[in-house]
Amino acid sequence: MLGIGDDAAVLDVPSDMQLVVTVDTMIEGVHFLPDVAAFDVGYKAVAVSFSDLAAMGAKPHSLTLSLTVPDVDHVWLQEFSSGIHTLTEQFSANLIGGDLCKGALSITLQAHGLVPRGKAVRRDLANVGDRIYVTGYLGSAGFAFQQIKNELSCAGEVEYSSLHRPSPRVLAGMLLRDRVSSMIDISDGLVTDLGHLTNLSNVGAVVDLEKIPLSDNMTKLPREIAWQLALTFGDDYELCFTASDLDIQGLNRRLDGSCQLTEIGYITEERRLHLLRSDGARKLLAFFYVWHYITTGNG
Amino acid sequence: MLGIGDDAAVLDVPSDMQLVVTVDTMIEGVHFLPDVAAFDVGYKAVAVSFSDLAAMGAKPHSLTLSLTVPDVDHVWLQEFSSGIHTLTEQFSANLIGGDLCKGALSITLQAHGLVPRGKAVRRDLANVGDRIYVTGYLGSAGFAFQQIKNELSCAGEVEYSSLHRPSPRVLAGMLLRDRVSSMIDISDGLVTDLGHLTNLSNVGAVVDLEKIPLSDNMTKLPREIAWQLALTFGDDYELCFTASDLDIQGLNRRLDGSCQLTEIGYITEERRLHLLRSDGARKLLAFFYVWHYITTGNG
Repeated sequence: MLGIGDDAAVLDVPSDMQLVVTVDTMIEGVHFLPDVAAFDVGYKAVAVSFSDLAAMGAKPHSLTLSLTVPDVDHVWLQEFSSGIHTLTEQFSANLIGGDLCKGALSITLQAHGLVPRGKAVRRDLANVGDRIYVTGYLGSAGFAFQQIKNELSCAGEVEYSSLHRPSPRVLAGMLLRDRVSSMIDISDGLVTDLGHLTNLSNVGAVVDLEKIPLSDNMTKLPREIAWQLALTFGDDYELCFTASDLDIQGLNRRLDGSCQLTEIGYITEERRLHLLRSDGARKLLAFFYVWHYITTGNG
Repeated sequence: MLGIGDDAAVLDVPSDMQLVVTVDTMIEGVHFLPDVAAFDVGYKAVAVSFSDLAAMGAKPHSLTLSLTVPDVDHVWLQEFSSGIHTLTEQFSANLIGGDLCKGALSITLQAHGLVPRGKAVRRDLANVGDRIYVTGYLGSAGFAFQQIKNELSCAGEVEYSSLHRPSPRVLAGMLLRDRVSSMIDISDGLVTDLGHLTNLSNVGAVVDLEKIPLSDNMTKLPREIAWQLALTFGDDYELCFTASDLDIQGLNRRLDGSCQLTEIGYITEERRLHLLRSDGARKLLAFFYVWHYITTGNG
């Protein structure tokens, strides 16, 4: 209704909708490397926020930006804005307010989405027996990051794109919101985020490692490394969700190549995460048990 | 509907209401001195945001907080939270989401308010002939700040409270929203903020310096210093508004001592700011003209 320029912005929320709100801060050196292109910093800030909206089944509506920069570099700001606008335009969302400060480079972005009343998908309603699914590939962003750090090679365009310009799964989230029991986006790695979902739902999970979707380049890595990236690195911004009965082939057709849905396991009554593999399963399980308990102790 | 703990929060906006959204960042060393008490940092962050809501005539509903801290100091965080909650409880608003990061101390707070559909008060609708009013006292926060900097003395409890724990004029804003043509909150000083209001409304203004409301301690200062603080220092978080016909005495009774409304001038067709005083007016006018043009050149 009223955007940038007044004391505040005014939003119309249709009476059959609810507003979904998410806020994220990205700090240079903490959430992104200092040499990341300004375009990608802007693009990813929006992608991260829209991914949270997607995990609720919401459609992006608008956003506010609070930007802190060490100095006014017009070229940087223009490219940053271009990154922001590329994604907001793609989803017909508007930048409705903001604040600009001087200091260490930091971006706080709050995104607003709309979801039909009562249809927001929660994290805490997974049921025993539900199947577990994810969108896209896991671990690709981690693969690209490790290559930048010179610890791995062979990551390509797909993986760099996952790291710098992840695609928020908005279409999938909207398509899934009437069909799933719970959903979360994978920002901290499958083990941690599926751990949040199962802990809040008072259930456990079995994940079949062989079913975790990996990009072609990822499959060239030793399996343990690929799985470790997929399970623990994070920065995927894919969706993980549970459902009792899903027509995956039909849904994948409707997603029309924007991303694939893959079944990776199922929900159990026993409140543990079991990771299955066809060989040497026991050793890997023990390692991940410890890791899982450490990282989700406060989850 | 759904608060902290999921990917995002879900807000219900009643169908006869609109959502008002404002975001502000406060950085240590830029927006507040490093030795300000943690309670006051939290309190003022909320007060600044609620002041923006008040200027729209909105009632605070909820807020999100993105907090960046150099280290996890539990005592500091507890006092900071206490400052946040003191004001949110006063206005029955809920903290619905947030983000915690490591870095230089910085607070980004986004506040959401509700206003009846179509009733949000804008900055750009002042009419020629309207009277100009403000809430409370102006310049008090500046007075306290200058005393901390050892440049003035005699500021007392009232002024320190204005600086560290300003009262957002929510009640006044809600009472005024059906009665005024335009409204803004005074964060950058009366000259700058009234300048925004008149520029956007394509009008000018005459302000009678003798009518500017000053706290008792402020009246002990030389007039030029008191006026300069009131006109240019900012950090007041009082409301400045315009109306053609207002029952000020009746409104002040309804505000019941929470703050007083004071008429300070009127809106003109000529797009300039005139500052009137009974003696030596010309010199002061010239000074403020220059200042006004410099500071509002991009406004």
